[in-house]
Amino acid sequence: MKARVEVMLKAGVLDPQGEAVRAALTTLGFDGVNGVRQGKVIELDLAETDPVAAEAAVRQMCDKLLANTVIESYRISFA
Amino acid sequence: MKARVEVMLKAGVLDPQGEAVRAALTTLGFDGVNGVRQGKVIELDLAETDPVAAEAAVRQMCDKLLANTVIESYRISFA
Repeated sequence: MKARVEVMLKAGVLDPQGEAVRAALTTLGFDGVNGVRQGKVIELDLAETDPVAAEAAVRQMCDKLLANTVIESYRISFA
Repeated sequence: MKARVEVMLKAGVLDPQGEAVRAALTTLGFDGVNGVRQGKVIELDLAETDPVAAEAAVRQMCDKLLANTVIESYRISFA
């Protein structure tokens, strides 16, 4: 089954990448962009077919590798 | 209003970052991960309040800066 993980910096954590995008958008003439946050999305194609087992596995993957839980939060969804 | 842009490599475009994640997951003992694709998600906080105008603006931002439309596709959504 297919799993989607979205990893974003936690609120309050400085996001220099997002800030760079915001500055670039303003330079390009896009006004009215008050803030930009950038994160990553990871699509996993899993052999596991049981939704409960798959979610448990993906949660472990996030905690061990995909997200730095000190500064990032993640959200798991299934297609 | 808040807009979300998800940028993914198009199908068929090699994704070395996703492949590195897949290899790392296997090394960590997660079997059954058939494939991984990694993309980015950009959250925009816009001053614009009209949904139609906002979508048109975000689409322009994607074409000009946020996505490389030669190899990437993007999806816009509003919260």
